[in-house]
Amino acid sequence: MSEADLASLSVEDSQASVGSKPDAEAKKAAKAAEKAAKEAAKAERAAQRGQKAAVMTQPDPEDPLKDKYGDYPMVQSQGQTTRKWTEVEQLEKELADQTVLVRARVHNIRGKGKSAFLVLRQRTATVQAIMFADDTTVSKGMVKYATQIPKESIVDVEGIIKVPEKSIEGCSQKDVELQVTGIRAVSRAAVLPFELVDAARSEEEVKAAAERGEVMPTVGQDLRLDNRFLDLRTPANQAIFKVQSAVCQLFKSTLLAEGFQEIHTPKLIAGASEGGAAVFRLDYMGVPACLAQSPQLYKQMAICADFNRVFEIGPVFRAEFSYTHRHLCEFMGLDLEMAIHEHYFEVLDVIEKLFGAIFDGLATTYAKELSVIASQYPFEIPTFKPLRLTFPEGIAMLKEGGYPDVDPMGDLNTELERALGRMVKEKYGTDFFILHRYPSAVRPFYTMPCSDDPAYSNSYDVFIRGEEIISGAQRVHDPELLTTRAIECGIPLPEIQSYIDSFKYGAPPHGGAGVGLERVVMLYCGLNNIRKTSMFPRDPKRLTP
Amino acid sequence: MSEADLASLSVEDSQASVGSKPDAEAKKAAKAAEKAAKEAAKAERAAQRGQKAAVMTQPDPEDPLKDKYGDYPMVQSQGQTTRKWTEVEQLEKELADQTVLVRARVHNIRGKGKSAFLVLRQRTATVQAIMFADDTTVSKGMVKYATQIPKESIVDVEGIIKVPEKSIEGCSQKDVELQVTGIRAVSRAAVLPFELVDAARSEEEVKAAAERGEVMPTVGQDLRLDNRFLDLRTPANQAIFKVQSAVCQLFKSTLLAEGFQEIHTPKLIAGASEGGAAVFRLDYMGVPACLAQSPQLYKQMAICADFNRVFEIGPVFRAEFSYTHRHLCEFMGLDLEMAIHEHYFEVLDVIEKLFGAIFDGLATTYAKELSVIASQYPFEIPTFKPLRLTFPEGIAMLKEGGYPDVDPMGDLNTELERALGRMVKEKYGTDFFILHRYPSAVRPFYTMPCSDDPAYSNSYDVFIRGEEIISGAQRVHDPELLTTRAIECGIPLPEIQSYIDSFKYGAPPHGGAGVGLERVVMLYCGLNNIRKTSMFPRDPKRLTP
Repeated sequence: MSEADLASLSVEDSQASVGSKPDAEAKKAAKAAEKAAKEAAKAERAAQRGQKAAVMTQPDPEDPLKDKYGDYPMVQSQGQTTRKWTEVEQLEKELADQTVLVRARVHNIRGKGKSAFLVLRQRTATVQAIMFADDTTVSKGMVKYATQIPKESIVDVEGIIKVPEKSIEGCSQKDVELQVTGIRAVSRAAVLPFELVDAARSEEEVKAAAERGEVMPTVGQDLRLDNRFLDLRTPANQAIFKVQSAVCQLFKSTLLAEGFQEIHTPKLIAGASEGGAAVFRLDYMGVPACLAQSPQLYKQMAICADFNRVFEIGPVFRAEFSYTHRHLCEFMGLDLEMAIHEHYFEVLDVIEKLFGAIFDGLATTYAKELSVIASQYPFEIPTFKPLRLTFPEGIAMLKEGGYPDVDPMGDLNTELERALGRMVKEKYGTDFFILHRYPSAVRPFYTMPCSDDPAYSNSYDVFIRGEEIISGAQRVHDPELLTTRAIECGIPLPEIQSYIDSFKYGAPPHGGAGVGLERVVMLYCGLNNIRKTSMFPRDPKRLTP
Repeated sequence: MSEADLASLSVEDSQASVGSKPDAEAKKAAKAAEKAAKEAAKAERAAQRGQKAAVMTQPDPEDPLKDKYGDYPMVQSQGQTTRKWTEVEQLEKELADQTVLVRARVHNIRGKGKSAFLVLRQRTATVQAIMFADDTTVSKGMVKYATQIPKESIVDVEGIIKVPEKSIEGCSQKDVELQVTGIRAVSRAAVLPFELVDAARSEEEVKAAAERGEVMPTVGQDLRLDNRFLDLRTPANQAIFKVQSAVCQLFKSTLLAEGFQEIHTPKLIAGASEGGAAVFRLDYMGVPACLAQSPQLYKQMAICADFNRVFEIGPVFRAEFSYTHRHLCEFMGLDLEMAIHEHYFEVLDVIEKLFGAIFDGLATTYAKELSVIASQYPFEIPTFKPLRLTFPEGIAMLKEGGYPDVDPMGDLNTELERALGRMVKEKYGTDFFILHRYPSAVRPFYTMPCSDDPAYSNSYDVFIRGEEIISGAQRVHDPELLTTRAIECGIPLPEIQSYIDSFKYGAPPHGGAGVGLERVVMLYCGLNNIRKTSMFPRDPKRLTP
């Protein structure tokens, strides 16, 4: 299959899988978007055929205000001035009557006779900018120039901050507007494959319109992903990736404070990292190699090498043909591994501290970003209380809660996990909990069996809103027991001999866990698809952009 | 070639390339190490053939002190006690006469009649522990048990902190020793492929011995790397990776404070990331794919997507057959990219702040780790002063400094870079400097040409000790100029059309840089080989462990 084929396949199939809209409507939206894209391409070709001259890019040389507008030459490090640019989010009442310079995108623009209304956008912030041709500060030529600047172009706008009588509902900066005194394009946009206002429209607005019998234009997931560098400009996406970066920083800072050290382990390895089948294979200088499905072996080697407590943030590769709302073929693994003195509860203590810090840090420091996300994709901030239930306790809850036939020694499927999540939320009031002591049969061979009953293991999963985000365990650190367990699980010893050997020279008892960054953000924000929390997602149908 | 072949090839060739020893001596050392490894394996096989019973693992049941020694059962989360373990580095005079519990490795052990001397090691810290059989706190059985514990085993030692009359020169904790009252093995080590004391020996000690005509055993690089989980236990290696983690944290914290945001971009991509040849290719669900040689395109797309200032810490893959002291096939890229208002000096300001913070942070907060590294691999802390020289200025210095024939429009080779580094150090007193305004001909097509002379470009390299650690530039953000430059450089347009397209919808002027983490640590610490600063290095001859 060619890349183009792959992309088109992706466009057709995606909406159905997203599952937030009925099929027919989704297809309609996708069609509309495709049509818009085609028209845009056509318009652009027309523009390239010489109709460019029609667009005003430089001022009328006779205009006395000609120094106040017109395209800049391309910024090429010609020199440095002392000009200061103000951030849009800093435009507040306190700056009233001051002149500021802003570099932002033209989010929206509307000309009306001698006046023009612009909305300028800078990441999650928007502000209204107004122009009236009065021939003293603004000329007619200037208004004409401004209204011909395409949406999404980057402009430098000089203006005076004014406090309008009524607050401006459509903008993040509601208490001020900019009275434009100068405007210059820094970088012009071509005709867009979709409108940013459509991509940024809230789900509630679309729903309300539908109830009135209207169809609000929306942008389908694959058109968004095909033009991800545009799609990412919506305020909700800007906020989602601020939150993603924040989760990373909270993960690191909490673990560093707990005595962990950051490590980096190779992603190019010989053989399959966990003996699994879903690996990407490649040729390494004539030697067969594959991409790491997890840093499992290497973080354990780091523990055997006395690093004591380590974490790694790195890509994880899974060649699984799972086209679901929560699987990616490449995702960011947040991994930790630590020596323990006595008990895997030492790891659970760290995990609870970690997620306490993440939940807390997001709710307090990133409240603004969370509300920006919620304004497009409504959700409630999840609750956090440390809670540990044993697997048998979880089974008992499920049996009592309407699942009498649940297998007490089997793994939980997605439905059971979600049901348990709901029951836990109801009974304990937390969206976060740990389930531990899983049956040995459903965990990998290197999981340490319980000392009192080898049918169970020193293992755990962690849930947010009833979906698994972490899997972990105390590992077998004894090479003899590891060999026995491998044989019991039918794993060919030669393939894992070097893994076993790394425990032969004195191995600290240890345990750890692996977290998927995109899943944490998705579940924390109650988003319906993991593609929303991956900057450039990779799934079985998507390898670009 | 099989993996085993690859490994053996690597063993034979490595010493020559490391270059720190004459060939003959290196081969002798490698042979000795191989012999030791073979003997170790033989001894182990003998032990496995039933001679294990000879080793005492449990106390004499008649011994009144039998509760004070003997192997623990395997730590399997049997329960949690209130015991507290003290870190070896915390054992100081202030704790004299207190009883502490320590979990550490047996670094060295020596029995002598009724007494035993142990050196316990925990990461970079070592302490002496002593036992005298007096039949009240220590029995003969206990001494016998202790002296039979293999080196590198992990033990729990209970003891009273004593202040010896003379300070203990061989240990990091010189002012105290432990008077053992209890000892139990947590995890026993098999016979080692090499001795940790040999792997940890300082270069100066080896040199001094050689001058006396003695040969001190050392461990060859490939034997180390083949058993990296052992080799990493040496204090110098423990310190090197503390420093590596610190560079990461300083990189992040400085950039976060400058308004940067962390991003994660895909490593699985369609086509070659920079149009280069040295890519690892693979099959992605039936579609041809390759591993990212750099996050260049994606970090630029993040800028086009309004993230303004971004950084990424992630693996970079280069399928180059470069077996040198400074090339790896997989390394950690520290990448940054930022929108600029006017000039690429805005990027250089950030780079200087960044390296100011890294140099400062290491020299102050990590002084202990640096001295541990220096005690095995002697080096001087590098000096830092912000210094920017233009490429023509650098050429002029080289011409005056003994290289009259240097090509004023060509790239600098390693020899010239090092020479310039020496001249700069002498003239300006700094081990760090920036060379900017490189000839356009030696930079990639997407580099922004200088506005005053397109033969030069808005580009820069950064040097530590005369070796390049950063390459960067202002990028062309104008799709038309980018197209022109690509054609001029002979790059087939269809291959890069999607790259060019991402600048079509309004692109902020921007620039950035890429840093190799392992190189920064290597050059800061004056180490002679990049394999010393990669936890599990990947080079053309090494894919394991």
